[in-house]
Amino acid sequence: MKVVKFGGSSLASGEQLEKVYGIVTSDPERKFVVVSAPGKRSSEDIKVTDLLIACAEKRINGEDLSNELKMLIDRYGSIATELNLPADVIKQIEADFLQVIDGDRSNKERYLDAVKASGEDNNAKLIAAYFQVMGTKATYVNPKDAGLFVSDEPGNAQVLPESYDQLYKLRDIEGIVIFPGFFGFTKDGHIATFSRSGSDITGSILANGIKVNVYENFTDVDAVFSVNPTIVSNPKEIKELTYREMRELSYAGFSVFHDEALIPAFRAGIPVNVRNTNNPSAPGTFIVNDRENSNGPVTGIASDKGFCSIYISKYLMNRELGFGRKLLQILEENEISYEHIPSGIDDITVILRENQMDEEKEANIVARIYGELQADKVEVEHGLSLLMIVGEGMRHNVGTTARASQALAEAGVNIEMINQGSSEVSMMFGIKAVHEKKAVQALYNAFFVGAVTV
Amino acid sequence: MKVVKFGGSSLASGEQLEKVYGIVTSDPERKFVVVSAPGKRSSEDIKVTDLLIACAEKRINGEDLSNELKMLIDRYGSIATELNLPADVIKQIEADFLQVIDGDRSNKERYLDAVKASGEDNNAKLIAAYFQVMGTKATYVNPKDAGLFVSDEPGNAQVLPESYDQLYKLRDIEGIVIFPGFFGFTKDGHIATFSRSGSDITGSILANGIKVNVYENFTDVDAVFSVNPTIVSNPKEIKELTYREMRELSYAGFSVFHDEALIPAFRAGIPVNVRNTNNPSAPGTFIVNDRENSNGPVTGIASDKGFCSIYISKYLMNRELGFGRKLLQILEENEISYEHIPSGIDDITVILRENQMDEEKEANIVARIYGELQADKVEVEHGLSLLMIVGEGMRHNVGTTARASQALAEAGVNIEMINQGSSEVSMMFGIKAVHEKKAVQALYNAFFVGAVTV
Repeated sequence: MKVVKFGGSSLASGEQLEKVYGIVTSDPERKFVVVSAPGKRSSEDIKVTDLLIACAEKRINGEDLSNELKMLIDRYGSIATELNLPADVIKQIEADFLQVIDGDRSNKERYLDAVKASGEDNNAKLIAAYFQVMGTKATYVNPKDAGLFVSDEPGNAQVLPESYDQLYKLRDIEGIVIFPGFFGFTKDGHIATFSRSGSDITGSILANGIKVNVYENFTDVDAVFSVNPTIVSNPKEIKELTYREMRELSYAGFSVFHDEALIPAFRAGIPVNVRNTNNPSAPGTFIVNDRENSNGPVTGIASDKGFCSIYISKYLMNRELGFGRKLLQILEENEISYEHIPSGIDDITVILRENQMDEEKEANIVARIYGELQADKVEVEHGLSLLMIVGEGMRHNVGTTARASQALAEAGVNIEMINQGSSEVSMMFGIKAVHEKKAVQALYNAFFVGAVTV
Repeated sequence: MKVVKFGGSSLASGEQLEKVYGIVTSDPERKFVVVSAPGKRSSEDIKVTDLLIACAEKRINGEDLSNELKMLIDRYGSIATELNLPADVIKQIEADFLQVIDGDRSNKERYLDAVKASGEDNNAKLIAAYFQVMGTKATYVNPKDAGLFVSDEPGNAQVLPESYDQLYKLRDIEGIVIFPGFFGFTKDGHIATFSRSGSDITGSILANGIKVNVYENFTDVDAVFSVNPTIVSNPKEIKELTYREMRELSYAGFSVFHDEALIPAFRAGIPVNVRNTNNPSAPGTFIVNDRENSNGPVTGIASDKGFCSIYISKYLMNRELGFGRKLLQILEENEISYEHIPSGIDDITVILRENQMDEEKEANIVARIYGELQADKVEVEHGLSLLMIVGEGMRHNVGTTARASQALAEAGVNIEMINQGSSEVSMMFGIKAVHEKKAVQALYNAFFVGAVTV
């Protein structure tokens, strides 16, 4: 059995839903379908979720929301019309939206969560109706009835462990189950939504609870690429990616997935298959626990801007027990989490995401490092990027560092920082952000293009 | 003006002292001579300092020390005889030793310091007598009279800042000043010795106080080598080394100097010239604040065994504010100082000197990391070496990492850890200790042999 999840762009129009229907019904294993709200049909389009947020906020502020409400109903209406659904389907959806938007607003966060969740919820109802019209036995299942219980944290709900056993019972439902993504219910019966990529999380939770063989995640790309296609054109597709590799790649801005969304599937050892709704015959990318073969040491290359470094030097720092700990304490008290802390004998550098630090915080931290730690020199450098090369095949591969640093040297990229030594499946380079593009291209050529031609 | 310091092997015999006399008198700038106690004449010989410690300990325990005492007096006696010094010189030295060894033993540490210091003190007296016999105006100066005041920490005394102004007055003494190394006096008038390389420290303090132009440090090698000559035969000599480079090299087992000994000279910006008593025409190595030219990016290569690593992984560690700080706190509470902490997304490795950790401490630390930090996995790996390549020329040298890692890859050495990013003048590699020798040789070939032939 499979859980199949479709993202917003796969559900943006009637035409897309026809593809979804074809995909689901072409494989009898595809029994559990998790759906997002309708996404954008074009780049100028507005997402249903954004329309819902606008409606909720206007309602709270007592403003006129008829325009947004009309756009919202029209989105569902046009899909229903395209698919020739009975008129009462869209009437029910309209009634539901009106009821939710007019709902209890005494707790603003809860109200917003309820409104947001209605986008997915009504889409699931619409899709179930469509499947039925097409002659396929399909049932909309509400997360509350299914027992998908979550913590009472609006916008950042966490699944409660007892949900998994409840969800296993979904197996008993005959035919196809259409399940709305993005939300669950608190023990008190309130709706609470997950964080970003919420429908991915729902799919992952269902995959774990139902104990399926595969969690298929349909998006709009044929596969996960080995490098950002806006930096390198037509990059190699990744056939198999381990969870570990994906997590390391995601860290450095590789937007495959909000990797934590996959934790429930990961914990149950269920492979995730990333596929393309618009090209369902492509095998896609499998995200797995272990991989047997690899083409060369490196699986993927990622990069991310927005880092800065704090360099601190103090003569005889090396002899001072507790220096590093006190430094991290100062950062912690400023609610700053660091990424890396390469250290020399008398110096230490902290690499962190620069969006955590405004001018005031920076001045405060620098002053405290001088004052409390008696540093000789403190320097903050902005505008750094981190590059990451990732691959299970890098374990015990003797020449990877040489190949990577050679490629960067030939491209004229100075390495400001190297982090290797903790993770066996990745190596990280800190460089100036202005060199990011040519650095990624050079690494790609060294590990992928080179690997083919040599 | 110059401070000239001679180590134990330069003062081990009359023959050596003749060389010292020739060196000092050949340059009228060599006015301030700091001397150690007589060192070993051969590898089987016993150092005077070790004889003194044996005498002191036997005296404390009420044991018979006539044998050690005889060996001690004979060492000075044979030097005096070789140099045809008047009989009363050695008589005075003998009387002084007997008095010191029979001195106040109510405070054992102070007593030991007084006995140890007498080796240098009597050697300075002997050498001053020798210079006078040779017709050169030379004066033994006692550190107490010179105002070399130190903190009351027997065996680890620190110079008190007011000493420097006092020492400046040594300029007023006519002729050559012979000054015993290794000790100073507390404000209460007690002798207190410096830590290891104590005569180097005295020379460095005098250089600063007197504000000389150069601090010449005579040993038994022609120069500082770019790499350990027991690993690479006939390695390149270093002409100029910056303080910074020396400190980084010393850290990884490069035994040029106990680098902290040079701090007083370093603070005053006085260059240190390492020279050979047995080959005084060799220019030696200058240790300086800044260096203009360099032959290639790397100045020296060093390596040291005896490191271990603690690898810790925990899923979502990256999101946990304070994880690194708490980890360092556990180490600090075990009085362990770390060397490096490379970190991945969900893992962190601590590199430390393994002599800090016994089995019990290791078990305690591992248990606390599991218990308090809820780590998923903790692994300790022993038997690591750190390699260090050091050079001011490495700043902004794009290809250094590539060249180094290429050399290690070709030698079949797997890099367990790279630390680059904090110090601009060094790069560190963690490798398995069994690979240390071939790794150092490979790096030497890449940066020194290669640099000549290419």
